[in-house]
Order: sequence, then structure tokens, then C-alpha cells
Amino acid sequence: MMNESLTGIPPLDLTAMDAARHRQALLTKPAGALGRLEALSIQLAGMRGDPMPQIARPIVVVAAADHGVAAEGVSAYPQEITAQMVGNFLRGGAAINVLAQLAGAEVMVVDAGVAADLAPHSQLHVRKIAPGTANLRHGPAMPITHAVRSVSLGQATAASLAAQGYDLIALGEMGIANTTAAALLTAAITGAGAEATTGRGTGLNDAQLAHKRQVVMEALQRHDAYALRGMPLLAAVGGYEIAFLAGCALGAASWRVPVLLDGYISTAAALVAAKLDPAVREYFIASHRSGEPGHNLALQWLALEPLLDLGLRLGEGSGAALAIPIVRAAAATLRLMATFDDLS
Amino acid sequence: MMNESLTGIPPLDLTAMDAARHRQALLTKPAGALGRLEALSIQLAGMRGDPMPQIARPIVVVAAADHGVAAEGVSAYPQEITAQMVGNFLRGGAAINVLAQLAGAEVMVVDAGVAADLAPHSQLHVRKIAPGTANLRHGPAMPITHAVRSVSLGQATAASLAAQGYDLIALGEMGIANTTAAALLTAAITGAGAEATTGRGTGLNDAQLAHKRQVVMEALQRHDAYALRGMPLLAAVGGYEIAFLAGCALGAASWRVPVLLDGYISTAAALVAAKLDPAVREYFIASHRSGEPGHNLALQWLALEPLLDLGLRLGEGSGAALAIPIVRAAAATLRLMATFDDLS
Repeated sequence: MMNESLTGIPPLDLTAMDAARHRQALLTKPAGALGRLEALSIQLAGMRGDPMPQIARPIVVVAAADHGVAAEGVSAYPQEITAQMVGNFLRGGAAINVLAQLAGAEVMVVDAGVAADLAPHSQLHVRKIAPGTANLRHGPAMPITHAVRSVSLGQATAASLAAQGYDLIALGEMGIANTTAAALLTAAITGAGAEATTGRGTGLNDAQLAHKRQVVMEALQRHDAYALRGMPLLAAVGGYEIAFLAGCALGAASWRVPVLLDGYISTAAALVAAKLDPAVREYFIASHRSGEPGHNLALQWLALEPLLDLGLRLGEGSGAALAIPIVRAAAATLRLMATFDDLS
Repeated sequence: MMNESLTGIPPLDLTAMDAARHRQALLTKPAGALGRLEALSIQLAGMRGDPMPQIARPIVVVAAADHGVAAEGVSAYPQEITAQMVGNFLRGGAAINVLAQLAGAEVMVVDAGVAADLAPHSQLHVRKIAPGTANLRHGPAMPITHAVRSVSLGQATAASLAAQGYDLIALGEMGIANTTAAALLTAAITGAGAEATTGRGTGLNDAQLAHKRQVVMEALQRHDAYALRGMPLLAAVGGYEIAFLAGCALGAASWRVPVLLDGYISTAAALVAAKLDPAVREYFIASHRSGEPGHNLALQWLALEPLLDLGLRLGEGSGAALAIPIVRAAAATLRLMATFDDLS
């Protein structure tokens, strides 16, 4: 077995996992009574290389970018909403702000490619390579060099967060029309068709959904997407926030930091990351099953069972933030509960 | 429509619910994108009579009691564990302590009928009528007067908590052999048989499970349990912690305080409460679906869909504590998110 992967991702620490498994058996509860929290605590031990892991400083990275394909009428909202929502994130009025605060998590807002000149702000982290992708209906979404740079910026950002002591990175996003990019990436990587991977996004009606499916189907053919992988696929049909988050996942895993996925778009980024380096998969935790039908296909391909199933379809990292207390609980019960030896 | 029920439980406040529904439509997200959180926020508004409800002071009431039927070998653990676990709750070493603290909730430990003289403790609330039930295989678990008093103590306790400002009451329990009582109550109230309502509890093997099913089946016949309801049923096959928690549910609802159910035993208490006063049902929130098979039957009878499905089967209020952040999130997103009018 190799010690390190292509991007420097270490395998799970089996010694820490054995120690965690042993401790689970001593805690003051019947064996298995904490259900999925028990396996999750052992997985966290393996990721962190710590038999008693702790999630003390979680952060939600919310990457925003625009999509040229928005011009095709694939979203219920106009492109301007992306920039407006970045402002909302910075003012603390969005769902992710409320949910992250409840979860005791910080929010890092990233401009990964918004199609507007956003006013500088102390809390806005600019990692922008271009003001949004080109319209993938007519050509590649971005040059391959942009895809490479965007992934690289994500890796560097996650590495910097890990070095600062953040011990869980949740992937959030904002970008009008980005479920179209997610549908294309999910189709290409899982092998599913446009029917299965294209959903209503923010709320399309039947006619709009049929049109979006047509756009996805034509783009799959135009780009010969099923034959593409890695950077060429990302460049052809991806998005800047997706590329950045794929990089975040790789960077986090290489620093032994768990990666908490959110919904359809962040899981599409996880698919891309898994194609760039399969070793990243052991660091994924699926927070929830989204209302977008293609999300479940992506989760199945990654062999992930989500912690929550609440019909969310908002993005921003909202489902991930809701799951942070559960991930924390898995670690905390392992670390803090008494053992039966303590009882008598 | 009656304004108040038998036990003084008000109907949901429809005006507050309409106002909450209206506000949900203005928040900075696509309609419906927060999935089940949205309906839950509106339900909370109706319970609290507040268009912008807040869950600021949740508490987990953990009621402990013993069961005479433990003598029949229906549990993998000896009866002494009940008292030992009460000590663990008071020292803060149990799962519920860890999980409640993470959720920002207090824990109230109640001796509702433990078969031991527990040492006085500032954090131990004694509501004990008898040191455990009699063996229901040979006669009624308790006199009807005891069932009435135990329910009444639960009502008074919840009313006192509501008056102190607690705004969510989660029901937790501890009691060796109490899944046997839960199986009997669930069978009698839902009409299901012993096969469907009797599970492995804390970890019975196949032979032990078959024996437990036999005990449940014989007790159902002996007490003619399918013909009993309310206090006579509770007295015949219930338990002191279950009676106390049924009372807590009624008391909380009469003060407009949401009642967060945990697993099989607390949901059996909810079934009992619903039979005593059907108006209580509108105040129930189901936290999780337990690994005990009968739990799902009880949830279906109550028409409740749980928030979590993590294979938990510990009790103590552990699943309820895990769900508190989700209930809080439902209220907080409604109350604190910006509206689209704020964006431009």
C-alpha cells in the first residue's frame, strides 16, 4: 500500500481507528446503541490520526461563482442573485450564517468567480480567476489552465485553514445555474443520463425543467463529456466554485481534515476531487440527501450514506452546517463518555 | 371547535402559523429550499403562539424507574444498572450528558421509581411513588392510583419547567426492561402484535428475543391489554418513568411547550398521553427513528416523521438531544434570516 497519494493524502490511521473501536466498546452504553455515531467516531479517529478526535473549530467555506449557461434560462433566478447573495453572506442574513452560528462554525466567503466587481470587504476572500464561466452550450466553460489554477487555489486555501487549526471543512456554494454544471459533471462521472441528473434547482416548472434537461443533454454530446475526466471535464462543463471546492477537498484531506459535503453542487465537486485523487474519498462525510434527484446518484457513486434527509435544496453549505452538531456528537461521545469501569 | 382540551391543552395558534408561513415566503432562499425545517418552523409558531418562535432554553427530562418484569430475563443487563446509570447521569458521564451539553440543553434527572435507595443529590429530582413496578407477568405493574399520581407528577413537573421559561421539553428515560413495557403499550394502543413490537432492546440474542416475545404475548393476553386504554392500561403493563413522561408531555403541551420525543420508550409514553388527551399530539416532534422495530409503528400511529434516522437505540433522551439543534435551526432560520427586500 502506498503511504501517500498523488496529492499527498495519507491513508486513514488504522492504529487510531483500532484504539477508537476499543474505547467505543467500553463506554457506558450497550454495544452499537449509538448507531451511526459509533462508526463515524472511528472514521474521524482515522482521518485525524487521533484515537479521541475532537471537532473544535469547524468552518464552512462558501465559494461563489457565476455560470455562463445561466443565459440559457436554466435557473428560476437571474444571475445578479449570485452577487446579491454574497452581500447577504457578508451581512450575515443568509441561511448559512444562521445555521453556522448555531453550529458554532465560522463561515469563509470566497469569490471564486462572481460575474460582478464585488466591493472589497474584510470578510470576502477573493480567489477569482475569471468573472464566471463561458456558456457551456457553445464551448468549454473555462480554459484548462483556469481549472488547474482554481483547484490549486482551493487546495492552498484548505491547507491554510488546516494550518490555522480548523479541524473540519464543510463545502458550501452559491452560483445561479450551478445545478446545470453539477448535472453535467454527475452525469459524466457516474455514467447517468441527463434525465436522472437534471432537477428543478431553485424551483423550475415542468416546461423549464424539460428545457434544462435538453441543455444538459446537448452539452453532454457537444463536449463528449462521458469520455472526459479530471481537469478536461472540469474545464468543459464545470464551474469556478466547483473547481475551487474540489481543490478544498483535496487540500483538507492532505492535512487530515474531514470534508463535510453539503448538497448537489458540493458533491459534484467531491466527484471531481475523487477523480483527481481517489484517496480523498476516505475523508468525505455526507451531511444530507438533497431534494435534487441527481444528488443521490452522486452519493451512491461515492458510497456515502448521508446523516440527514430533510428535503433541503438550498446549498450555501446549509445542510452541512445542520450536520456539524452530529459530527461533533460522534467525536464527543467517544471522547467524553464514562466507561463501565467508572460506574462501580 | 373546543378552545381547550380535557387537560387544558390549547389548539395550535393559527394566526401565528399564518404569520410564520408568510414570513417563510419572504426569506432569502427559494421557496421550500429549507425542506422540512420550514414546516417545522410553522408548527413551532403554532405551538408557542409566536410568529417568530425561539428555542432558547431546551431541557431533557430523564426519568428513571425499574421494572419488575426484569426478573423474567427480558434484558441483557441486570436491574442494578438503572441505579448505576442514574449515578452516571449525575456525574455527567453518560451519552445524554455529552449530547445535551453539545446541544446547549440542560438535563433534569428524575427518580420516578428506581428500585434502590439513591443517595440524595442536589441534581436528583425525586418523584418516586414506588421502587419499581411489580412483575407484570404475574399481575398489574402498579395500582391505578399510582399510575394517576405518576402522570400527575409529570404534569406538575413540566408545568413548573414551562413557568421557569424552558421552551422545549425533550423526553428521556432509563430503566432496565422498559422496552418490554413499551412493547406492551405499543401493541395495545396500535393494535400490533408482540412479534412486531418486541425487539432486542439493549442487545438480546435470538433465543432471548424469542423468550421476551413470549413474555410480551402472554402478558397481552393475561391483562386483556388490547381492551384497555388510559390509566388502566398504564397500570397493567406500564412503568413509572413512562407514566411520568406521559404526564410531562401533557403538562408541557398545556403550557404551549413543544415536546421532543426520543426513542421507543418515550414514544410509548407519547402514545399513552395521546390516549389520555388527543390534543397533546399537535405538540409532539419526533427526533429520530430508533433501531427498535416497534418504534416505527408507534411513530406511524402518531403520524410523526422523525428528523433523524441514525440507528440509535440507547434511550436517555440521546436521540432527542441530537435533534435539538435541528429544531433550533428551524426556529432560527425563520426568525433571523434576511428577506429579499433587505438585499437590494
